[in-house]
Amino acid sequence: MGMKRILLNCDMGESFGVWSMGDDVHAMPLVDQANLACGFHASDPMTMQRTVALAVQHGVSIGAHPAYPDLLGFGRRHIACSPEEVTALVLYQLGALDAFCRASGTQLAYVKPHGALYNDLVRDDALFNAVLEACASYRKGLPLMVLALADNSRELRLADAADVPLMFEAFADRAYLADGQLAPRRLSGAVHHDPQRIFQQALAIARGEPFADIDGKPLQLRADSLCVHGDNADSLAVLRRLRASLDAL
Amino acid sequence: MGMKRILLNCDMGESFGVWSMGDDVHAMPLVDQANLACGFHASDPMTMQRTVALAVQHGVSIGAHPAYPDLLGFGRRHIACSPEEVTALVLYQLGALDAFCRASGTQLAYVKPHGALYNDLVRDDALFNAVLEACASYRKGLPLMVLALADNSRELRLADAADVPLMFEAFADRAYLADGQLAPRRLSGAVHHDPQRIFQQALAIARGEPFADIDGKPLQLRADSLCVHGDNADSLAVLRRLRASLDAL
Amino acid sequence: MGMKRILLNCDMGESFGVWSMGDDVHAMPLVDQANLACGFHASDPMTMQRTVALAVQHGVSIGAHPAYPDLLGFGRRHIACSPEEVTALVLYQLGALDAFCRASGTQLAYVKPHGALYNDLVRDDALFNAVLEACASYRKGLPLMVLALADNSRELRLADAADVPLMFEAFADRAYLADGQLAPRRLSGAVHHDPQRIFQQALAIARGEPFADIDGKPLQLRADSLCVHGDNADSLAVLRRLRASLDAL
Amino acid sequence: MGMKRILLNCDMGESFGVWSMGDDVHAMPLVDQANLACGFHASDPMTMQRTVALAVQHGVSIGAHPAYPDLLGFGRRHIACSPEEVTALVLYQLGALDAFCRASGTQLAYVKPHGALYNDLVRDDALFNAVLEACASYRKGLPLMVLALADNSRELRLADAADVPLMFEAFADRAYLADGQLAPRRLSGAVHHDPQRIFQQALAIARGEPFADIDGKPLQLRADSLCVHGDNADSLAVLRRLRASLDAL
Repeated sequence: MGMKRILLNCDMGESFGVWSMGDDVHAMPLVDQANLACGFHASDPMTMQRTVALAVQHGVSIGAHPAYPDLLGFGRRHIACSPEEVTALVLYQLGALDAFCRASGTQLAYVKPHGALYNDLVRDDALFNAVLEACASYRKGLPLMVLALADNSRELRLADAADVPLMFEAFADRAYLADGQLAPRRLSGAVHHDPQRIFQQALAIARGEPFADIDGKPLQLRADSLCVHGDNADSLAVLRRLRASLDAL
Repeated sequence: MGMKRILLNCDMGESFGVWSMGDDVHAMPLVDQANLACGFHASDPMTMQRTVALAVQHGVSIGAHPAYPDLLGFGRRHIACSPEEVTALVLYQLGALDAFCRASGTQLAYVKPHGALYNDLVRDDALFNAVLEACASYRKGLPLMVLALADNSRELRLADAADVPLMFEAFADRAYLADGQLAPRRLSGAVHHDPQRIFQQALAIARGEPFADIDGKPLQLRADSLCVHGDNADSLAVLRRLRASLDAL
Repeated sequence: MGMKRILLNCDMGESFGVWSMGDDVHAMPLVDQANLACGFHASDPMTMQRTVALAVQHGVSIGAHPAYPDLLGFGRRHIACSPEEVTALVLYQLGALDAFCRASGTQLAYVKPHGALYNDLVRDDALFNAVLEACASYRKGLPLMVLALADNSRELRLADAADVPLMFEAFADRAYLADGQLAPRRLSGAVHHDPQRIFQQALAIARGEPFADIDGKPLQLRADSLCVHGDNADSLAVLRRLRASLDAL
Repeated sequence: MGMKRILLNCDMGESFGVWSMGDDVHAMPLVDQANLACGFHASDPMTMQRTVALAVQHGVSIGAHPAYPDLLGFGRRHIACSPEEVTALVLYQLGALDAFCRASGTQLAYVKPHGALYNDLVRDDALFNAVLEACASYRKGLPLMVLALADNSRELRLADAADVPLMFEAFADRAYLADGQLAPRRLSGAVHHDPQRIFQQALAIARGEPFADIDGKPLQLRADSLCVHGDNADSLAVLRRLRASLDAL
């Protein structure tokens, strides 16, 4: 009754040259939003072209997934870039991906930073502003997707000043700290492996209901999108069930 | 009286990280069109951002200068890419550069392939079509700049089929074969070093008058633009004189 | 009775960062020689370190598998490098791989160029000499592995002049032209897929007996080593059978 | 009278492809030790080959100058590599450079990390050990060059455990903190520009005498080598004067 349906987003287009990653062909029909690598941590021009075409074929919204320049580290290693460098490298990646969107008759729908850059935004206002500037100067109204926290007032304040709309995403397969930060992977229990647990957390987030954080305390998040995975048979099974449940809400 | 004035184009934005190349600050005010490297043979996000801003400041038209992926070889080495790969890598570079144009309130004005890719287009219809497809699918009406020959009917026919406008460029400091191809650099006399000779050939081309090819026979080219250099004191001196002469035509 | 046993060589260490390729763990115990990528077409420092350690553990001889600098194209695209560039880029890769050999208490045993560079050697004496120079200047006596032909007098003459020993390899899963060149992959029947056919061709080569070329005519090759694959269940099955048969010869 | 003469070391071989940096031809005859880039922050196979040959020609000792993999940032940006990654990437670079040394009839004489990696060693024991392990496993007795501090007991303890000899270097053109750390570049007065000041600090260090730290307090360092620059006319002038003075000590 008036509830905005939660979307499903998935990192895709992460192959590189002869090296394949993910199962985009099977996952694409199940998601609403595809976060596509832009050649800095994964992907290449041919992979980008092919993955954009696949997203367009399935009516999936295309987001840029920009990263630090680190193919070898898959964008997971922090690189001490200045805010000016970050604005420029994000702009570069937005444009590169959008070229394939244009050629396929569509356009970038949003931006979701990848890996270490995504994580760095949580703590560093200057980097957050650098990414906001890239979004705002690329196209007025282009949204930035960030982590849904118990309290997103910091992100909303910075984004509002830059006139950039935000989208909030949550994770069904990750344990959360009390403030809505993701539990660090080094903590035991940081990643959920039980499909039923993942499915239940996803539904709770989709309904805006509280679920258990890593200490078992209730946590409530307001999210526009759930980050899902579809790179193997197990994750595809969870994704299919989740898609069916959300469609039935 | 009605003669369309010839433009001056120059390869720019060819620094990479800490390594500087060219003298864009002094050359930019003297040219009409800046061919900007897109990160595959030279340049990087910060250099692209800075060079686009400089071009905008001087009202210079911005062209993409896409290349094979070869920083180490400065895009001068042929790489056996398939036509599909070429379309994709050109699209990638167009978008990446255009992001900085958008952020500066302008847009890509044309495309001029660089180095080995530029040379390969002369002989290879499949590669020529691959670049045309990148231009056409990126933005309807986006022009491609190619070498002015004694007879450009091949290029016009292919571009017409792809619905891509062409711009023709000529060189004042290079000797020509009888058919309007550039004399290979390995030939003695292939590159003019005498400023007066460069200046005279430039004026002849600008006026649509014949000039001497490498064998001393008259050659007439119809060109929209002259490719000039501005990376050292000597070339800047020729460029200043040429600019003044063209302005006085 | 005095016959030198043929060796089995396999391209390995072809992962890159998070992207995995091959099944080195299962293939390594089955081969005699591992051709290890050196970071130019595949591999990276961590992958090289790990694969060298695996080879040492199984007493497998380590060969460098240098390539053109082309991660995106997996070294399969010809790049127009000068002979001087080829000598330098091969030396660089030999040293880089040998560092991990030294750290594991062993040393490079031979050099086998990869992909487009391997193919270019067949036709281009200058490039062949460039690779020979890299081998000879890196370490006196370091052998180069090349394609066994019906007549290898060209290769022997060039290698002899450079004082570089040659190793000859043959392929069990490729069809041959009459002169012992590999049938181009675009030809129908260029690659054998039938395990029995592959097995028979391997045994014939191992015994120095003639086998059918692509036109059904008998071809005899003298090879020191057979190039095998072990990257999936099928190729591992052929490899196990071949290993057992050779051990029983 | 028995005093060990201080050596002069200089970062060299920092060109990349068509982009030139430094004036190695004029600086090489003036120094004792050349720290050569290995392709990760600067240089390339042809540049390495040429610079090694230049060093050999002038009897200059060749050190490897390994760095984080960051051509665009010239190795000056910290990258969050694990210690295992650092060991592997240093080994790779040592071997690559040593290949050109071997081909020129010499061998690596020492290792001096570059840029952000050099700076990270000061604070991070795990990274320091990672580099020590690369040195020790590459060749027994291969020395590591580090920053001379007022108290180098930490470095000596770690290096001793790894059985790696240390060389200590000092800077004539940098201001020092009281403990012998380099004053951060953001501090006013962190870099000396006055040739006379640079010359005096160099002589003090060469003689083992105290000189003024950034607060004017006396600081005494025991150094084996002075890091000098020779990339422009000014620095070459200081270097020539210094060379002459040291030769006259």
